[in-house]
Amino acid sequence: MSEAEAGVPSTAEQGMDVAKGGWYTELGSMWPGQGLSLQVKEVLHKGRSKFQDVCVFESDAYGTVLLLDGVIQCTDRDEFSYQEMLAHIPLCALEEPPRRVLVVGGGDGGVLRELARYPSLREIHIAEIDGAVPEISKRFFPQMAVGFSDPRVKVHITDGIKFVTDAEEGSYDAIIVDSSDPVGPAEVLFEEPFFRAMHRAIRPGGVICTQAESLWLHLDIIKALAAMCSRVFEGGSVQYAYTTIPTYPSGQIGMMICSKAKEGGGAPLDARRPRQPAPGANEALGIPDLRYYDHEVHSAAFVLPRFAREALEGSLGR
Amino acid sequence: MSEAEAGVPSTAEQGMDVAKGGWYTELGSMWPGQGLSLQVKEVLHKGRSKFQDVCVFESDAYGTVLLLDGVIQCTDRDEFSYQEMLAHIPLCALEEPPRRVLVVGGGDGGVLRELARYPSLREIHIAEIDGAVPEISKRFFPQMAVGFSDPRVKVHITDGIKFVTDAEEGSYDAIIVDSSDPVGPAEVLFEEPFFRAMHRAIRPGGVICTQAESLWLHLDIIKALAAMCSRVFEGGSVQYAYTTIPTYPSGQIGMMICSKAKEGGGAPLDARRPRQPAPGANEALGIPDLRYYDHEVHSAAFVLPRFAREALEGSLGR
Repeated sequence: MSEAEAGVPSTAEQGMDVAKGGWYTELGSMWPGQGLSLQVKEVLHKGRSKFQDVCVFESDAYGTVLLLDGVIQCTDRDEFSYQEMLAHIPLCALEEPPRRVLVVGGGDGGVLRELARYPSLREIHIAEIDGAVPEISKRFFPQMAVGFSDPRVKVHITDGIKFVTDAEEGSYDAIIVDSSDPVGPAEVLFEEPFFRAMHRAIRPGGVICTQAESLWLHLDIIKALAAMCSRVFEGGSVQYAYTTIPTYPSGQIGMMICSKAKEGGGAPLDARRPRQPAPGANEALGIPDLRYYDHEVHSAAFVLPRFAREALEGSLGR
Repeated sequence: MSEAEAGVPSTAEQGMDVAKGGWYTELGSMWPGQGLSLQVKEVLHKGRSKFQDVCVFESDAYGTVLLLDGVIQCTDRDEFSYQEMLAHIPLCALEEPPRRVLVVGGGDGGVLRELARYPSLREIHIAEIDGAVPEISKRFFPQMAVGFSDPRVKVHITDGIKFVTDAEEGSYDAIIVDSSDPVGPAEVLFEEPFFRAMHRAIRPGGVICTQAESLWLHLDIIKALAAMCSRVFEGGSVQYAYTTIPTYPSGQIGMMICSKAKEGGGAPLDARRPRQPAPGANEALGIPDLRYYDHEVHSAAFVLPRFAREALEGSLGR
């Protein structure tokens, strides 16, 4: 059922409301009947890229806010929670220091900024479908877009699925998928063909980490995703962690962390246990110390409330 | 600055909006510039008690919702997270099974329901200032109000501070404070005289656990509260934990857990470590198994994001 059918304003209609000033309420078909409302100080940008509506506004409570198709992607004040956890949980879980990593989506540069902290990395690729997003980020979110300044970063404005499918087999230590929700353009990033392509593109013992919605709102989606991942990453591990972030629906967002079976078998990676040191600042680029992630936070992020643990039992595993 | 001065509708004005149906946006001076919006199916009750505005509505997304002075106190769908964590973290942290516990506030009965799970308890007292709240809860929230049916419960409709001050010294194993925010009637429940009275009323090695706001929104309040608690509970411990709950501002709420120095000295209680078994269902009262709390969740709740840990360093301690 679309939002219009549900009798609530569409996200596009909501997006129009921003221009009037006042308050913005983030409605969406994935969180019917609820939405975060933010007071708008000033609309900084409104337009449409080849793929989506793009809006940037200054809020009273969270600084600058990026909307894509009316959905909050990030705000100045709390983006670090999501970016740090999506990047450092998979990378710190690896048994060897990461050398080659791919980001799919993440056009705001926030995950790149986190990757720029790792001295061991030799190559950082990003496949973002919408070239407008990095441009908007460079203009309005310099503290995230700084990630594009790392000389190890290679930007590919292209379809992420095609990029991953064409990648050399076993060539990445990790793939991080910073996608929007599975409605519209990002839907394919939650489907089996994409996960099979990622499984092929990472080395044995490597990891993928994908944005995986909220335990409070999307337990059915998470359960189905976990079951699919368990098929694709047979012999490896499939685990779920979450972080708190006030401007995402329900105040939290999760990630699915899957590892590929190791060569010669043996116990698969247990992503709950960090093995790489938490990275520090990147002084050359002016990237400050971590603000959310440390090793204790890493392990605690996998401890799920009982209702979620019980619902996902049998779907997750290692 | 009041909400009216800030140019946004007051909570009272918001409360009026509920009666019109449509959507309710929870605005408040403690979370300026933001608010959760919920679609309203039906307003079930609107009135004013001796102390506050009371409103109950049926929401599309979270079932029945209780508002006091326009602020969401609980909803059918997510109340268990708060009630379980506020009750079981302090009680499971105790070194001996609890026998006598006091609840201050908590007139909806949700914390009482959690206490009803402990076979060891001999007496459960509740001091709630507003007699209208238990009545409303019995009418609209039977799954919380069931806590009042436990024969060990003694209800005192009275001022919580006076009740605690008059209590016999050292007579409680634990005091749980389920209060609203520190604006208006509940403000005194965040101040030193009340904490000194609680310190006196619990036994050596006993604990108190108080609602302590959100790390994302109220770090300054939490820091000041922790510093005050460290003075009052000298020789004991002062620790902070949090739980996720979508209908509270920022999607989470924390609690301050303080223990009184043990007789004869020695290391104070470390509340991070559960020592009592997680309680089960109470079949006689029809209270089902826990849905949020278990021992792993208990310990993980104390692991704070780095920005919060660093801000509170020096204020918390054991």
